Amino acid sequence: MMDYSSRRTIRRYTDKDVPDSLLEEMLTLACRASNTGNMQSYSVVVTRDKALKAQLSPAHFGQPMVMEAPVVLTFCVDFNRFSLWCEQREAEPSFDNFQSFIGGAIDTSLFAQTFANIAEERGLGLCYLGTTTYNAADIIRVLHLPKRVVPLCTLTLGYPAEMPEQQDRLPIEAIVHREMYRDYTASDIDSAYREKEGLASTARFIAENRKKTLAQVFTEVRYRRDSNELSSEAFLKVLREQLFL
Amino acid sequence: MMDYSSRRTIRRYTDKDVPDSLLEEMLTLACRASNTGNMQSYSVVVTRDKALKAQLSPAHFGQPMVMEAPVVLTFCVDFNRFSLWCEQREAEPSFDNFQSFIGGAIDTSLFAQTFANIAEERGLGLCYLGTTTYNAADIIRVLHLPKRVVPLCTLTLGYPAEMPEQQDRLPIEAIVHREMYRDYTASDIDSAYREKEGLASTARFIAENRKKTLAQVFTEVRYRRDSNELSSEAFLKVLREQLFL
Repeated sequence: MMDYSSRRTIRRYTDKDVPDSLLEEMLTLACRASNTGNMQSYSVVVTRDKALKAQLSPAHFGQPMVMEAPVVLTFCVDFNRFSLWCEQREAEPSFDNFQSFIGGAIDTSLFAQTFANIAEERGLGLCYLGTTTYNAADIIRVLHLPKRVVPLCTLTLGYPAEMPEQQDRLPIEAIVHREMYRDYTASDIDSAYREKEGLASTARFIAENRKKTLAQVFTEVRYRRDSNELSSEAFLKVLREQLFL
Repeated sequence: MMDYSSRRTIRRYTDKDVPDSLLEEMLTLACRASNTGNMQSYSVVVTRDKALKAQLSPAHFGQPMVMEAPVVLTFCVDFNRFSLWCEQREAEPSFDNFQSFIGGAIDTSLFAQTFANIAEERGLGLCYLGTTTYNAADIIRVLHLPKRVVPLCTLTLGYPAEMPEQQDRLPIEAIVHREMYRDYTASDIDSAYREKEGLASTARFIAENRKKTLAQVFTEVRYRRDSNELSSEAFLKVLREQLFL
């Protein structure tokens, strides 16, 4: 049984390769994840070629895992395959809309995460790159994604060459609501974030960024309004171009 | 180790309860899933109350699992908690945009799916309800979800009282692209769908729906353009109301 309690994201990998046969076996199992209407509205692009990874790298803001991991997997919402099938079978595809995209995005994430759980169970290490939706247009160009296909998330994968500190998580009471949503009081918020705010790494992080609070590091450095809004516009444009809006 | 190869969706459940302590243990482990910037931009509402489930039921088009499962879990994108924290810590939250929603939707799906994998490993059975994004406004009302929270997917959960046929999946070559996306030829599409089209259940399904092809059942019965477009508009409206667009 997978030991979820000790999992951590792995950003450094050994030279050991991940053979295609193992990848294929794990992806086959991951396809067993639930999906909407059994349409399997996803694809995965497996990139190993150095030149191609170098082209992907700027879209991921040069994060070194893209070049260093033996395998980069780009998980995509894909209604191209299903629509082509419809067109070949006297049916008019009806998936060029936002609801199809959202359903596809959930299915793609379930597929990716089941793959991630299986890979970690087998001793592999991985890192999700959230940059995929920031620079989706570049990834579409590099990977030759056609209309009706949108890159959603990327995994770098390999055998672990590090054992980083495990990151904190909020207490489970902060995440779970019984019967219906109970909105948070000021004191609920204080309790939820107390442990995180008390960590030595938090103090370091605040000092390095010359802010007064950890929250300011998030809103003024890591997830600034201006860059969030720019990348929102960029991703909405991609959804229009790929025919989902 | 979880036997992914034999998994199936479970829609009928025994009377055996799923204790809160077990749920909480599994949700705690599921929080170990990767997430963007460790913001944990998700919440889960655990509904057991019959009257409340009866109110949720129409939003899920009356699918019987909602009333019959001991537990209904509604997984939500939640930037409310994080934004409240920012506001209490002299930081101006910057998450009222589409990019934050998409990142939150991926994180919520990864959390839900890790929970699903853990629950199945423990012998529980579950079913995802894709109806959550179709009728999100109703779910928001019933579960009292505040602004900056959007329901994304729902799991019904319990101990299995059935062992249904396993559903088919496309051959893995139809899902995986090497290095970059290779678009499908007509013959690739034929190969990808050959097994599915040859199933006895497919023939039955086409006949029951009085269509010529399986693809027509999808586009003219199950995922009609008019209903997809209506629910797209409804979900975009929810994203605007919940401050993500």
